[in-house]
Amino acid sequence: MNAPERLFLTDVQSRPDDRNVAIDQVGVRGLRLPVQVLARDGVQSTVAQCEATVALPPQAKGTHMSRFVEILEASDTPLSARSLPHLLERMLERLGARAGRLDFAFPFFIRKLAPVTGVPSLLDYSARMAVASSDAGAVVTLAITAPVTSLCPCSKEISAYGAHNQRSHVTLDVELRPRAKLTLETLAAIGESAASCEVYGLLKRPDEKFVTERAYDNPKFVEDLVRDLALALDARAAVRRYRVEVENFESIHNHSAYARIERVKA
Amino acid sequence: MNAPERLFLTDVQSRPDDRNVAIDQVGVRGLRLPVQVLARDGVQSTVAQCEATVALPPQAKGTHMSRFVEILEASDTPLSARSLPHLLERMLERLGARAGRLDFAFPFFIRKLAPVTGVPSLLDYSARMAVASSDAGAVVTLAITAPVTSLCPCSKEISAYGAHNQRSHVTLDVELRPRAKLTLETLAAIGESAASCEVYGLLKRPDEKFVTERAYDNPKFVEDLVRDLALALDARAAVRRYRVEVENFESIHNHSAYARIERVKA
Amino acid sequence: MNAPERLFLTDVQSRPDDRNVAIDQVGVRGLRLPVQVLARDGVQSTVAQCEATVALPPQAKGTHMSRFVEILEASDTPLSARSLPHLLERMLERLGARAGRLDFAFPFFIRKLAPVTGVPSLLDYSARMAVASSDAGAVVTLAITAPVTSLCPCSKEISAYGAHNQRSHVTLDVELRPRAKLTLETLAAIGESAASCEVYGLLKRPDEKFVTERAYDNPKFVEDLVRDLALALDARAAVRRYRVEVENFESIHNHSAYARIERVKA
Amino acid sequence: MNAPERLFLTDVQSRPDDRNVAIDQVGVRGLRLPVQVLARDGVQSTVAQCEATVALPPQAKGTHMSRFVEILEASDTPLSARSLPHLLERMLERLGARAGRLDFAFPFFIRKLAPVTGVPSLLDYSARMAVASSDAGAVVTLAITAPVTSLCPCSKEISAYGAHNQRSHVTLDVELRPRAKLTLETLAAIGESAASCEVYGLLKRPDEKFVTERAYDNPKFVEDLVRDLALALDARAAVRRYRVEVENFESIHNHSAYARIERVKA
Repeated sequence: MNAPERLFLTDVQSRPDDRNVAIDQVGVRGLRLPVQVLARDGVQSTVAQCEATVALPPQAKGTHMSRFVEILEASDTPLSARSLPHLLERMLERLGARAGRLDFAFPFFIRKLAPVTGVPSLLDYSARMAVASSDAGAVVTLAITAPVTSLCPCSKEISAYGAHNQRSHVTLDVELRPRAKLTLETLAAIGESAASCEVYGLLKRPDEKFVTERAYDNPKFVEDLVRDLALALDARAAVRRYRVEVENFESIHNHSAYARIERVKA
Repeated sequence: MNAPERLFLTDVQSRPDDRNVAIDQVGVRGLRLPVQVLARDGVQSTVAQCEATVALPPQAKGTHMSRFVEILEASDTPLSARSLPHLLERMLERLGARAGRLDFAFPFFIRKLAPVTGVPSLLDYSARMAVASSDAGAVVTLAITAPVTSLCPCSKEISAYGAHNQRSHVTLDVELRPRAKLTLETLAAIGESAASCEVYGLLKRPDEKFVTERAYDNPKFVEDLVRDLALALDARAAVRRYRVEVENFESIHNHSAYARIERVKA
Repeated sequence: MNAPERLFLTDVQSRPDDRNVAIDQVGVRGLRLPVQVLARDGVQSTVAQCEATVALPPQAKGTHMSRFVEILEASDTPLSARSLPHLLERMLERLGARAGRLDFAFPFFIRKLAPVTGVPSLLDYSARMAVASSDAGAVVTLAITAPVTSLCPCSKEISAYGAHNQRSHVTLDVELRPRAKLTLETLAAIGESAASCEVYGLLKRPDEKFVTERAYDNPKFVEDLVRDLALALDARAAVRRYRVEVENFESIHNHSAYARIERVKA
Repeated sequence: MNAPERLFLTDVQSRPDDRNVAIDQVGVRGLRLPVQVLARDGVQSTVAQCEATVALPPQAKGTHMSRFVEILEASDTPLSARSLPHLLERMLERLGARAGRLDFAFPFFIRKLAPVTGVPSLLDYSARMAVASSDAGAVVTLAITAPVTSLCPCSKEISAYGAHNQRSHVTLDVELRPRAKLTLETLAAIGESAASCEVYGLLKRPDEKFVTERAYDNPKFVEDLVRDLALALDARAAVRRYRVEVENFESIHNHSAYARIERVKA
């Protein structure tokens, strides 16, 4: 397209707005992109669902949707607690905005060793990295949902043998203090250590014997898990605010047992 | 809008088409509607995702989308293996079609009694009723996915105590012979009887002791479940074709064990 | 099971806990139940995903999961802003808890008339009713997601003809003032009035002409929708806090344009 | 674990079964793994949901679940129509099975150029590659769901101005002839060429003008799309069997228009 034609394409979004209503967040959502994430053992390739938004002052009619996509596509730095504030800064500059937010949700993989045979395999977690403007600067949030095993203490105690157990989802969503370091791997390990037993991608028979007995030796209510998670995050100086959630997909019901604790630390 | 104006609204879909391509199915999908379903204890109100389609001959340009919605909304007969062929017939007439298909997917509820205390509660199943034209007349398909408990025989055998167990989904998808009778409740019961144990909405402690021990006494591989389901449906004269699937949401992994058998009977 | 045996089934959850961690929410989630909802034209039968939780003080080891299910199943009063606080009260009493929360998410249906022909049809909305304890008593939240049409003002202005349009989701999530009245139907109407055009289950050709031209005459950015919604809720005395969200499933992209405003009123 | 202990862990799955029921498919499902896919411009990193199953003869009690995971994790060859049969062969050998199936579903990305400005951006597709045993050897299936724009011919014709349009999903699921070549990029291009207009990740204003007018100039019913897709696949010698589906997420309704054609070629 040549320049003169371009001149005729009015930029409707740049007109003033007279409703006097500020918008908290406006931008793009549900944008699926390949991303790289900084992991303990190097850079990991995965696929993220991205949301990128800015605050819009009352007088501005609209934002520039295509610029969000440009910035997200142009970025080639692996996602990390350190890189996200820079990416947010570039986005705010390009959009001419004073506040904004970036959110990436993606599957994250950790290589684990089977507990007895040591056979390696990958386990998939659902992770999220986000950064948002605040009065005190950019605030980074990390979150991970780890699949684990929970075994019911009540079922174990009242039954002559056996105990119902099931897959559970442990979610840790933490806001980091400025420049604090915390990895997704550490969050996953915290989540798994609170469970009756960890889960693995690949288990040989001796491993299966181990995890079966380990879970039976270590029964936990949903309340126990969420409390142990809260204590573990209370002890982490890097964490300023947290939300822990546990959902047990009960093997004896078709609904979940669920618990949640949210805290802002001093 | 007055009548003359109406005359000018061309019916584009009624024009001829010169590509000479018949369409197997065309219609509406993802239409969410309140429906009534004929259950053992009376009529049950639920909400269905509906799909309604007809076959379109090569020379017809298009079908009439709004008529599908009209027919589905106008129907006030509870869904059942008996009523579905009539509904299909009305739809084919209204659409001027020779073949078609109706599909309703909905949560279905069965009141169950806890195994020891007898406390009643509802359990939710995912059900489906469909009817399709065939050379031999209308063919009705019933399907149900029942949540159950599965307990791993290998884990039980190799472990000093305990055994991993988990929620599983048992799906029975059956094509009925003409005028044959089979209820969703019967299908659910077949599915549950193959499992290590049934699940319930509400269990008191004596019930929890029972289901824990029952599952431990009755370990089943995914292969065992699917085979027992196949044998059970082989024995049902009402069933002409079936597909059984079992998915165990393994409590020691983050993936499922899965098995499937599909048969057309003589 | 006879009474003596019952005595031996220890109530593990009732033991004291020494971790000194209060739990914000613990209970059941993902419980699917048939429910009745009080609608403008009477009582509506639908199916809800239910979450019911209580706060647990530091010294209590666990809650009683089965009681949540008992209470939800026993309730036969249609859900409404008026009935929910009573249901919460009963739950807190039964659980011996001081604070708690109930949340019901369900498809909700409104009969609408096509804009020209007046043909009636149902439209499905995703709705939510929740009630939570607060220092000032029970607080009720209503939410609805209405499907609507949005037509892009920029596309209309820069193009010689046509304009891209798409299905959008308008979500209004409002906290009611004590004893204030607001219906899901009113919320839906507010949401729809902000859009380029409403959507319908059933449209005849004259209606299709109307909605096509109506949307073209009434282009709206995602920013316009969210601002108009905010102004509409600012004007509603019944509303103490609101969150409005609009997501346009852009027909020219594979991602959404998204905007959000959240306000607490004085 | 030392060898003697290993000897005591009975291999329950290897015992004989006396039910005399063959299992069509048994294995793992819902296994999420990072994978590499052979794309036109090189190897693409993405994340797949994997299903791997074998047929089990009547006399065998069970399969070896952990071996499926081993094989999937050990594979480092990028997925392609050429590599999949080899992977299946290795799996069958390792499992001692005569027939089996591998299925990978993953987001797939194609770099596209905006139609006027030429600005590049990625578009995400939902893709699937599968391979299954058959009497005639391994059969490879490729599938892609491409997001596109559809514009309603009826709405355009009856309206004084404008026309409703929306995002649609075009799915092409094709079985390749032995050693035939067909890329996901070609399938995507076939899907997009049938639509009223393609969609893009990033469009500048001149591009938005172009796609708006292009869709208006090129109205298509769901019937038109599915027929044009069928003709396009009829003309591809590489394709032995195909299923094409189109779902229009109607911008004037809350349900979809849907069409489907399935053909086995001579």
